[in-house]
Amino acid sequence: MRMNDKLSIGTGRDREAAPDIRTEVRTDTIRAYLKKKLRSDQILSDKIDEKYLSDAMGRRKGAAALVVFPESAAEVSFIMRSAWENELPVTPRGAGTNLTGATVPDGGIVLDLSRMNRILEFDPDTFTATVEPGVLLADFQSYVEEKGYFYPPDPGEKQSTIGGNISTNAGGMRAVKYGVTRDYVMGLELVKADGTVITVGSRNRKDSSGLSLTNLLIGSEGTLAVITKCILRLLPKPEYSVSALVPFRTLREGIASVHTLSASGTAPTAVEFVEKDVVRLGEEFTGEKFPPCDAACYLILTFDGSRTGVEEDLKKAETVLRRSGASGFLVLDEPELAKRVWKIRGALVKAVEAVSIQEPVDVVVPIDRIEEFVTFCSGLQKETGIGMVSFGHAGDGNVHLCVVRGDIPQERWETELSAVLARIYSKAEELGGLISGEHGIGLAKKRYFEHASSPELLELMRMIKQSFDGKGILNPGKSYLES
Amino acid sequence: MRMNDKLSIGTGRDREAAPDIRTEVRTDTIRAYLKKKLRSDQILSDKIDEKYLSDAMGRRKGAAALVVFPESAAEVSFIMRSAWENELPVTPRGAGTNLTGATVPDGGIVLDLSRMNRILEFDPDTFTATVEPGVLLADFQSYVEEKGYFYPPDPGEKQSTIGGNISTNAGGMRAVKYGVTRDYVMGLELVKADGTVITVGSRNRKDSSGLSLTNLLIGSEGTLAVITKCILRLLPKPEYSVSALVPFRTLREGIASVHTLSASGTAPTAVEFVEKDVVRLGEEFTGEKFPPCDAACYLILTFDGSRTGVEEDLKKAETVLRRSGASGFLVLDEPELAKRVWKIRGALVKAVEAVSIQEPVDVVVPIDRIEEFVTFCSGLQKETGIGMVSFGHAGDGNVHLCVVRGDIPQERWETELSAVLARIYSKAEELGGLISGEHGIGLAKKRYFEHASSPELLELMRMIKQSFDGKGILNPGKSYLES
Repeated sequence: MRMNDKLSIGTGRDREAAPDIRTEVRTDTIRAYLKKKLRSDQILSDKIDEKYLSDAMGRRKGAAALVVFPESAAEVSFIMRSAWENELPVTPRGAGTNLTGATVPDGGIVLDLSRMNRILEFDPDTFTATVEPGVLLADFQSYVEEKGYFYPPDPGEKQSTIGGNISTNAGGMRAVKYGVTRDYVMGLELVKADGTVITVGSRNRKDSSGLSLTNLLIGSEGTLAVITKCILRLLPKPEYSVSALVPFRTLREGIASVHTLSASGTAPTAVEFVEKDVVRLGEEFTGEKFPPCDAACYLILTFDGSRTGVEEDLKKAETVLRRSGASGFLVLDEPELAKRVWKIRGALVKAVEAVSIQEPVDVVVPIDRIEEFVTFCSGLQKETGIGMVSFGHAGDGNVHLCVVRGDIPQERWETELSAVLARIYSKAEELGGLISGEHGIGLAKKRYFEHASSPELLELMRMIKQSFDGKGILNPGKSYLES
Repeated sequence: MRMNDKLSIGTGRDREAAPDIRTEVRTDTIRAYLKKKLRSDQILSDKIDEKYLSDAMGRRKGAAALVVFPESAAEVSFIMRSAWENELPVTPRGAGTNLTGATVPDGGIVLDLSRMNRILEFDPDTFTATVEPGVLLADFQSYVEEKGYFYPPDPGEKQSTIGGNISTNAGGMRAVKYGVTRDYVMGLELVKADGTVITVGSRNRKDSSGLSLTNLLIGSEGTLAVITKCILRLLPKPEYSVSALVPFRTLREGIASVHTLSASGTAPTAVEFVEKDVVRLGEEFTGEKFPPCDAACYLILTFDGSRTGVEEDLKKAETVLRRSGASGFLVLDEPELAKRVWKIRGALVKAVEAVSIQEPVDVVVPIDRIEEFVTFCSGLQKETGIGMVSFGHAGDGNVHLCVVRGDIPQERWETELSAVLARIYSKAEELGGLISGEHGIGLAKKRYFEHASSPELLELMRMIKQSFDGKGILNPGKSYLES
């Protein structure tokens, strides 16, 4: 992108370089201009808190001249038009819970959408809700569930925003039955890089009317347009939900049984796998305990639906899983017990982080290759001495892997990590997998994504970017874009 | 598109105009060139059968210099490269069952993909199948069902191809529970206008790795690239399936009850509505009979899943529907009876066509506006004297409307039809609906689609088209493209 090259001068990509006089002038111009239409508490230009310059990992830090807090699509449009005219990069962000550096600014303006956090409409007649992008997932889930409805996408980080979920096509545990964020976004209001406001999609269940720009925007990591409104699809809240803990003597048996379960016609909501050693980490971190059973690996299942349906599925699941080698089948129908198991599962990343710095990998592989991938990572751990903690969504092939620094000194860590990541991603590629199942590419996985993608594919994505944002000002350098 | 304008000279848009000498030269060049790599039975240049110049309606006829029958992606690539170099328009087609003129060629080459009809791989381990685009839906459904699997998309026309289904994002009756074609396409192999072969998507269940070009291609009506391979997602075949016929005394009650049914937590596979008069047409056409019951309108429901689950849903459905005014609830558990009812429902379009020429409309409206839309059409019929037969997918808001010519003389018909269609589409728009729920835009609905879309949106779609096909040779003038 020619424009990116131009913008990269003095805009944070090389923070040590002397500030570019043209950029400074542009920043001053735009600050003065924005002040005409926004209140002073909507513009931050001095002492910018580091949180606005990073992601949830906090390792990559960018630079920005301004952080702006719009409160409406009209304000977003005004800000974008100003940035467009002044050719300043804009990095949109929600709660900044991403793990990939997708919100690390490259100079210019950070567009913080967290104040656009209103639920605009709840429409039970069409099973939809319309929200602003800054609504937190946790808040939205509670809101609709109180009304007897259900928003299935359920990524681990509930303090993320809906806009962020859409921008990364966030997945989560319920994907195996209900799909991912993509499956629940019906329409969007967008502000293009030049400030134009457009609406894509609708409240309609079917759509064969032109190109699906809604679907193109989902997962585009803030590179194509700024999301200012989201029409989301809801389901009726399932009547009943129950989990089960299923111990296996080997990882191989545990993961192999997932296919049998899927083929059996039961419809589990979640199928998570976790190894014994990882459980121990989680137990130590939370102070909670898994129910005692001897296992190398566990599946944690959830079923939801009508009570009879769930009970029927549980019975069927128990039969097929025991036949596949499960050494037990513990229905977690005591709420306290279920809470405890899920608390441990939910805390695994934090449990790892309490012990060591870690690099999160969220590779997805075809569902029949999970065991091969996890076994490869165990082998790599033995070979390199670098810790690999894996667990995740066995039902959909999305493996979460923490590559653990442990006591490797910082000066060696970067190099060793890079070497190990290259092998992990290359294995995923060999198995027909993808670099990211739900976190997105951002900056952290860019190099591996580029390696895994054909030049023609990258070129096409970059040309599409040009259609939306000819000056390349929106989140430059992220995901599929040129650095 | 500048290119389109250039290509339109003598390429069928104005069939009466004198043939353009440059086009003729280009066509000769390419014919000679193609003959070097393709067998003679793969190229048709004399006496081109009219079916290659039209769609299933047969009313719009285009022109083409060549019909080419590739048998591999390599051949498609070769043909596209030749067309690209010679700047000749290419119209891809499958079985040509579309109703919108999407396969009406605008000069140049018709690319008939019907010989690329192999099922390349059936992979039960990942619940996927990989097929060529020319595989017929009916063949594919039987193939996977024989193996105990299930491909949910179920548009009415089973002699359509998978490639065509993807190009229109075809829906069908099972969409209310299972979604549409989009939800079952995991990856594609594509040949771009310049002949480049690219692969998008994969066999992975989750994907947050760059822009979703797979989703952009779905529903793009042959304008962006030629599909040469499709990775499709399968489900385990439901254990049991049963339908029910539910009579109502008024259309209003029948349609209003659909929401109550959806909110009840039952998961019907199909929720079709049909009015009494329309049933009568279907009965006369098929020689079959609906079971006798006095009703102004019927819902036809299907439930599938485990036997207990289906029975539970049936019970629940009967309770809520009777409470909403159903005057009966007839479970069609006798296979003969079920077959009869579905035969009548499936024959409705043909039944109308047996009586008169009709114009098919497949508007989709938000699910709470169906009754308003159908009532509007009845009013329009009374006001204009033009027959309107409506029925369709009550569960997802997709109304099929046949606008019936009856005995209106041809010279008046075109004008009257246009006037009536403009009012129908404008009503759909007012209700928050879309021009097409599953048929696509093609040529037939272009004018209404353009009217309903903002100039910015159309411009954006056209710029995306440019990213894929800078010369505008792929299916020029269709859907969102400029005429």
